[in-house]
Amino acid sequence: MKDDNCLFCRIVSGEIPAAKVFEDGDTLVFLDHRPLFAGHSLVIPKEHFETLSDLPAAGVGKFFTTVQLLARAVEKALGAEGTFVAMNNKISQSVPHLHVHVVPRRKKDGLKGFFWPRTKYKDNELEEVTKLISATIDQMKIEGK
Amino acid sequence: MKDDNCLFCRIVSGEIPAAKVFEDGDTLVFLDHRPLFAGHSLVIPKEHFETLSDLPAAGVGKFFTTVQLLARAVEKALGAEGTFVAMNNKISQSVPHLHVHVVPRRKKDGLKGFFWPRTKYKDNELEEVTKLISATIDQMKIEGK
Repeated sequence: MKDDNCLFCRIVSGEIPAAKVFEDGDTLVFLDHRPLFAGHSLVIPKEHFETLSDLPAAGVGKFFTTVQLLARAVEKALGAEGTFVAMNNKISQSVPHLHVHVVPRRKKDGLKGFFWPRTKYKDNELEEVTKLISATIDQMKIEGK
Repeated sequence: MKDDNCLFCRIVSGEIPAAKVFEDGDTLVFLDHRPLFAGHSLVIPKEHFETLSDLPAAGVGKFFTTVQLLARAVEKALGAEGTFVAMNNKISQSVPHLHVHVVPRRKKDGLKGFFWPRTKYKDNELEEVTKLISATIDQMKIEGK
């Protein structure tokens, strides 16, 4: 349930202070102290799960209901025009406790280029990757994962 | 339900082809044709909802269960070390039909710098923003949103 060495578990337990903006039985939301923009919030499950893949099926709906609430609230509270909602799983994940970033966005806020550069599929790579992911999902379903 | 001018609605209906990797009653997943990395998938609800905020409460759990499935499957299928899972709501949103990017990640894949530069809160700005978001959520709960 709790990892004593985890920064976010220690925020949940109150050992480490944080700028909390929302809390319910399963989730906690606090401000990232080094925000992309003011209002940049982190939504976390109170229990220790490292990544999205580790979140139990029963908890997915409740967790993302809070993410949705924050997307609405951050945009409204900061008078923003949109939001960026993202999570890093393992790679680029600074704290190994699932956290979804909810960041207020505005036109010309300087973030527009973050989703580049894009690449292109070559020859029959698109078909091969499509089959590969599709087959992996089929296999996962068979294995009950 | 369907927006005839929406590219993704037309992919759902089959009017426009796409490299589909998964489909169930509520969600469709296909490859982004200009990927950050091979395997970059887009998870969409079959019904037309513009942003995360517009997704009905009853659909949040099912939609993100598919997002979770893809996070697991993309990582496994591409032999990746992690994933980046993200959505743009309104700002930087290329197609105004909710879509969650699921991107396979590897160490030193060149994407590590995308979440910068970060800023800092000044003086009592952190406390003010905390109160603002918290109060907005309280007001939204009162208004039943």
